[in-house]
Amino acid sequence: MTTQQLVSEIKRKNSFLCIGLDVDLDKIPSHLLKEEDPIFAFNKAIIDATHHLCVAYKPNTAFYEAYGIKGWQALEKTIQYINDKHPEIFTIADAKRGDIGNTSTMYAKAFFNDLAFDSVTVAPYMGKDSVEPFLAFEDKHTIMLALTSNQGAFDFQTKNVDGIELYKQVLETSKSWNNAENLMYVVGATKAEFLADIRTIIPNSFLLVPGVGAQGGNLQDVCKYGMNDTVGLLINSSRGIIYASNEKDFAEAAAKKAEELQTQMKDILN
Amino acid sequence: MTTQQLVSEIKRKNSFLCIGLDVDLDKIPSHLLKEEDPIFAFNKAIIDATHHLCVAYKPNTAFYEAYGIKGWQALEKTIQYINDKHPEIFTIADAKRGDIGNTSTMYAKAFFNDLAFDSVTVAPYMGKDSVEPFLAFEDKHTIMLALTSNQGAFDFQTKNVDGIELYKQVLETSKSWNNAENLMYVVGATKAEFLADIRTIIPNSFLLVPGVGAQGGNLQDVCKYGMNDTVGLLINSSRGIIYASNEKDFAEAAAKKAEELQTQMKDILN
Repeated sequence: MTTQQLVSEIKRKNSFLCIGLDVDLDKIPSHLLKEEDPIFAFNKAIIDATHHLCVAYKPNTAFYEAYGIKGWQALEKTIQYINDKHPEIFTIADAKRGDIGNTSTMYAKAFFNDLAFDSVTVAPYMGKDSVEPFLAFEDKHTIMLALTSNQGAFDFQTKNVDGIELYKQVLETSKSWNNAENLMYVVGATKAEFLADIRTIIPNSFLLVPGVGAQGGNLQDVCKYGMNDTVGLLINSSRGIIYASNEKDFAEAAAKKAEELQTQMKDILN
Repeated sequence: MTTQQLVSEIKRKNSFLCIGLDVDLDKIPSHLLKEEDPIFAFNKAIIDATHHLCVAYKPNTAFYEAYGIKGWQALEKTIQYINDKHPEIFTIADAKRGDIGNTSTMYAKAFFNDLAFDSVTVAPYMGKDSVEPFLAFEDKHTIMLALTSNQGAFDFQTKNVDGIELYKQVLETSKSWNNAENLMYVVGATKAEFLADIRTIIPNSFLLVPGVGAQGGNLQDVCKYGMNDTVGLLINSSRGIIYASNEKDFAEAAAKKAEELQTQMKDILN
């Protein structure tokens, strides 16, 4: 999917909501555990109930790997279901990968070719030659960690590096990489006040913003400081939406929570 | 496995060699492609031929994920085979994972419980609360990236942070984390001269050292600057060993290359 197609969908749906599909078998409604593939059954119901309210889905690979082969089968079925039924929806493999060159190429093939995700999240620590292999894939997007929503972000990301914070150094440096136009960045909503500075470095890039809701970030603040001409934001909510209820009405409850966010987004966009 | 058990094995085998099982179907002998599971067939032959020469095996997860479900099945079979036949061998899931707290716990469960690896590699960018969930597992080891062997290491890792290089900041900071005694670190052999400084910060920790051989690192230099009282080193070689031949003699050729390194290690240890 091209960035232009994503922007068109945001305008058509009046939404820049991304729903995180982080499925934990200890948290889903117990009646689903009788299904042959409870993880996929949960995802399918959530997707059926929310696809008109969001522009992106983001499964975090940790939640699938934790269930071994069955987890990977559920991940495969989930991405295939989204691509078959809703090909206009942007898909994010939240994998936070990164390795030396030829190894990153293997990861890129896994997520872009085999699983056919539109994008994958990567970590910046290993630098240019660990990220460029992902950037080489046409019409695919690489979403690099910049400033994350957790407390540990202050351990290294905000430390002063040659006069500026490390996360700003990461943003600045990455702009010169080959195919940098395929880069997006993760910036946590819990640090909305940092977004004004971030926009001076990368005015045009899309930002994936986790941390609204469960982690305490505020949607209005994120938009105030982070929105650009083409919206430029994907706001993620995972637990706040998918675990709104753990009864038989879980999908309707998820849709209701998603609609609350989408309604706020519509107001902001118009 | 405890660190003490690993040290005992190093002394018993006169080896601190780790063999990287990075299986690429484009590089393995063509006769194996007729096997039902070519990746596992390759690994089994390599393990059968080299287990007496090394103390650790390190599959890089990228090479398995690239083949989807079949790749994960091959990874499961490989770790089970090592644990069944050679439980004294230290196993490393080279996965370079890292995410916010509860998500890191899911990764830790995947690699420590389900797959029963002794250790997993992680990235430091997200800080303390992304790594501590791994450290909480008893007799399991978390191997954190410090200074990697690729060119991109110079993009951020060696940048000056509040007066010292970022990778030193990572080493220093991590010493205060809960269960820090379960930490090991990745330090590339291509930067052997950095090891003397590193040993002033973490004198007792084990280092996993990639980059000897194919990437140009020198074993003698690594030992000169990096070895401590309990050896404290695991030297990894992947391509240089497993792809020594791509004919029917590939396993014997791999054993010969492994033995060359083990012989050098024996000389250094005695």
